[in-house]
Order: sequence, then structure tokens, then C-alpha cells
Amino acid sequence: MPLVVTGTIGIDTVSGPTGHAENVLGGSCTYFSAAASFYTQVRMVAAAGDDLPDEHREMIAKFEGIDTTGLEIREGSRTFRWGGKYMENMDQRETLFTDLGVLEEAPPPVPESYADSKYVFLANNHPAVQLDLLSKFPNAALAVADTMDLWINTANDQLRALLKKVHGLALNHEEAEQLTGKRNAVAAARHILEMGPQFVVLKKGEHGCLLIHREGIGALPAYPSETVIDPTGAGDSFAGGMMGFIASESERDANINPTDFDVILRALGHGTVVASFNIESFSLGRMVELTRAQIAERFDEFTGMLRVHG
Amino acid sequence: MPLVVTGTIGIDTVSGPTGHAENVLGGSCTYFSAAASFYTQVRMVAAAGDDLPDEHREMIAKFEGIDTTGLEIREGSRTFRWGGKYMENMDQRETLFTDLGVLEEAPPPVPESYADSKYVFLANNHPAVQLDLLSKFPNAALAVADTMDLWINTANDQLRALLKKVHGLALNHEEAEQLTGKRNAVAAARHILEMGPQFVVLKKGEHGCLLIHREGIGALPAYPSETVIDPTGAGDSFAGGMMGFIASESERDANINPTDFDVILRALGHGTVVASFNIESFSLGRMVELTRAQIAERFDEFTGMLRVHG
Repeated sequence: MPLVVTGTIGIDTVSGPTGHAENVLGGSCTYFSAAASFYTQVRMVAAAGDDLPDEHREMIAKFEGIDTTGLEIREGSRTFRWGGKYMENMDQRETLFTDLGVLEEAPPPVPESYADSKYVFLANNHPAVQLDLLSKFPNAALAVADTMDLWINTANDQLRALLKKVHGLALNHEEAEQLTGKRNAVAAARHILEMGPQFVVLKKGEHGCLLIHREGIGALPAYPSETVIDPTGAGDSFAGGMMGFIASESERDANINPTDFDVILRALGHGTVVASFNIESFSLGRMVELTRAQIAERFDEFTGMLRVHG
Repeated sequence: MPLVVTGTIGIDTVSGPTGHAENVLGGSCTYFSAAASFYTQVRMVAAAGDDLPDEHREMIAKFEGIDTTGLEIREGSRTFRWGGKYMENMDQRETLFTDLGVLEEAPPPVPESYADSKYVFLANNHPAVQLDLLSKFPNAALAVADTMDLWINTANDQLRALLKKVHGLALNHEEAEQLTGKRNAVAAARHILEMGPQFVVLKKGEHGCLLIHREGIGALPAYPSETVIDPTGAGDSFAGGMMGFIASESERDANINPTDFDVILRALGHGTVVASFNIESFSLGRMVELTRAQIAERFDEFTGMLRVHG
């Protein structure tokens, strides 16, 4: 059980052109873990309040690959809540409210049984917290962090300290520009490589992603979905598919280096496919019914969509 | 010499964050032909005024694969002129002026020697003109039209008549939405297939393209360019690389059907690569120095960027 994710459990209220979902299960840790669980065992590190409904705990338990030892239900605290509204084009959203709850308190403790984790994903959080959490995993062979504009603006020094410690950074194009002052996506990502990481995953939502790696460049479209119900968690399920695949491949074959360009590019293909299922429903509705066979089938389909060579 | 393109010769004035170019050679027919000429012989059908500078004619002549029999220099007329300005992000532009000139007169005549053309690209124009031009090529095995929002709004009936006659349509995402009322790119393109064509190429600029074909779906990123000097002509050079490849492949092997999904998807890969060179300079500066070996090298690189399968 080598993969661990640190992040949030959320209670989300989402609305948009495709409908409305109230107080459903969300959060970066949730989406990541659900996605990764199709590839490998995944260890959660997250805190929730005692207001987390039983049905949400039961939903998490339905994913057999998720280890919830590190899911702390904190008595007297409130679970993080987020409300958002998607615009007509489904690629832009507005945050209607955030209630930080337990996120304003101390980070969740990392169980001792997790100390041997080899693959670490630090979902979006204050970089100082990410740094502290990362220090709990001394055997990390691959550590990847997500971040956001807020930390680039308010905790830039700590973010730069984090970048010296992780192998990879995931962020979107606008954030990369903000962090580096460079408008060109490739130039911005190359600049980030100089800050420490071996690779940068530039997330472009419905437009796919770029991999800027010291060994080379990758570029993938998103899976062209006709059924987009709720993009919430797309980035985290993408990361979950990616990290789950890498952990699974590296465990299967000890000769595979989890930071190699080829491995990560293939992993991004898996992340793309898993995320494409996630957005087909609100919350984890589609993921909880997903099978490995369905992932494999769509992965083959996706591969065929990219076949430019004879 | 089976490939023909109908379009414009332009004198462009372009400015943006990367510089300024005044009265340089442009036009859809020019960019298309230059790109296609790396793959096959390409026949131009276009008109220019007698104000077209000698250096611009000489530039066209430098591309050995271009047949200019159908390039009419019209005495007493003015060449189409366009002025545009690119915004900071290089993916949006503003038209500063258009001087239609010869485009307000009768379309150029199609030389008799072109009547046997098998591969036809109708660059953006009024759909009634495109229909008339298409009728001059009774042996067309593959006819593809480009269009724009103006014709969707002002010549919708003629555009729909055109769609019944062509095998493929190229347009951008917003235009597909405008034509069909559907926001989802795949759904919009599928709707267009019901109007007649066998495939739709959805152009997304720096985000690549989608191929929605009766036989399946393709999705490609753009080549991740670090050197973007001038995106003018990107769509036309993309189409030129695509059509040039298809014409070349189909002539090489009579068993290849030029409207097959696999052929067109591979062709879009070539279009992507040729267009990525085009945007590295103003006008045809990069294209005129381009070699087939450079295209082949970047095509291999691009293939490697998409390699999600082990």
C-alpha cells in the first residue's frame, strides 16, 4: 500500500446548467482516492467534522482500494463545505460560498502505518502544510503537489521551498503564468523546472494537459466528452488516475522509475480517462459504478483518438 | 497534380506583442498552398490586384510545389488587404481593417487544366461562391470547406446547401455552436454530420483540434510551441498540411480512401506540425525555409508527445 494522498473531505453544493446537487460528498482527497483506487491501494490523510453524514462515509467505504486509517473524524468540528455554480459552458465556475470548518484547525495526523508510503500526492493546501505533511514520508520515491493562485500570491516563499522538495507540480496555465510571469505555457513550465521539480503537469481542463519534464514534453487532449454533468473534482480524479497508475506500474516492475517521462506521460493518459468518467455525474455517482474494464475500454478508445502514426 | 485550393491572396499588416509586419504576403490560399506544397503539387485558384508587389509573387514562386496557373492578377483591381492586432496571449486578435478589393468582384476563373482535381479545399468564402467553385471539380474524391461566423449568420441556407456537397467541414468551436445551437463540441459536430458531411474538423487554435467523423472521434493537442511570433494563417496552413498529406497518401496507394477516419486523423497530425512552423514567423518567413526533413523530425517528436500506450 504505497500511495498516499493528503487533502480535503468536502460537503459540496453544486449547481449549473445540468442540475443541482446539495450537500453531496466532495473534496480533493475524496476524488483523488476514488480515482486512484482503481489502480492500487490508496491511503487517505484528511480530516472531517462530526457533521459528515453517514452516507458519505459509506460512499467512501464502497471503494475497496481506499485505506481510511488516516481519515480523522474530529468531534465538535465542521466538515469543509463548498458551494459553486457552473456557467453555461461548464468550463468556468463561480464559488458561491466556502465554510472552511476543520481546515482552519490543525492538519490531520499521519498514521504511523503510512510512514513507508512511496508515492505521495499533496492535494491543494497551504504550502507550509504540504511541506510538513511531506516530511512524514521519508521514503517518498515520487512526491507531487497541486497548488493554486491563492498560495502563489500569499505564500510564495513557502511554495518555492516546497518546489525544492517535490518531484512534480500540478497547476493550471494561468497559475503557471502567475508564478513565473511568463505567458507562454511551455516557457512558464520550463521556468518552474528551474525552481526544483523534475516535471510540471499543466492542467487545461477541457483542453487537456501538458507535461513539461526535464526529459521531454508531452501533450494530451482531454477525452472529448458528450456527457458533462459536473466538472467538480476533475483535476483531483485526474491526479488520482495518474498517481494510481504510476504506483501500480512501479510496484509491478521494480525496474520502472516512477519519475521517468514515459511513465508519467502514460499515467496522464490514465488520469485523463478516469477524470472523463468522474465528470459524468455529480459527486462520486459515476465513479462508484465504474469498473476497471470500463476504464480499460475507454483508454483504448482514447489511444485510438490520438493515433497520428500509420 | 490532384490537389486544388480556392481562396485569397492577401496583403497583411500584423502587429502584436512580438512585433509588427507591414504589407506582408498573406491570404488563405497562400498559407494553404505553401503548407501543402511540402506534400504534393497544389493548384491555386485566387485573384489578386495589380498592386501585388513583385516580391510577393516571387515568394509564392519559391515554393516549387505550387501551380499558379489559376492565380489571376487582375488589372486595375486591388489585392485584398487585412490589418490585425494580436493580444498579449496570442490566441485572440482584433481586425483593424479589411479592404476587400478584388474579393468584391467576380470570383477567379478555374483553369481548364484543373478540372481533373481530385482533392479540393474551399477556403473560407461566401458559401454560394464555394458551391460554384466546387462545381468546377466533378472528379472530387475529397472536398473540404472552411467557413466562418459571418456566413453562418448571413448565408445560412447556402451554407447548408454546401454542406450537402462536401465531405468535410472545418470550423472552430464557437462557429459549430453558432451553427447548431449546441454548446458541447462533440454534440455540435455530430449535429453538423446530420447536415451532410462525413466529418467535421473542429479547430481550437492553441488547444488543438477534434475530428468528429462518422467512423469515430479523434482528438489532438496543438504542438506546444515556445516560439509563437504570428498565428496568422495557422488554420490555413493546418488545412494545407492535412490536405497535402491526404492527397499524397492517396496518390501513393490507390487502396487508400481519402475520406477514411484513420487517414484524416493522421493528416490532422501533419496539419498540426506544419502549422506549428508557420506561426514561428510573420508571413511565410519560416515556411519558405522549411524542409521536409524538419517536418518529419517534428512529426516524430509530436508523435512521442502523445504516446500514452506502453
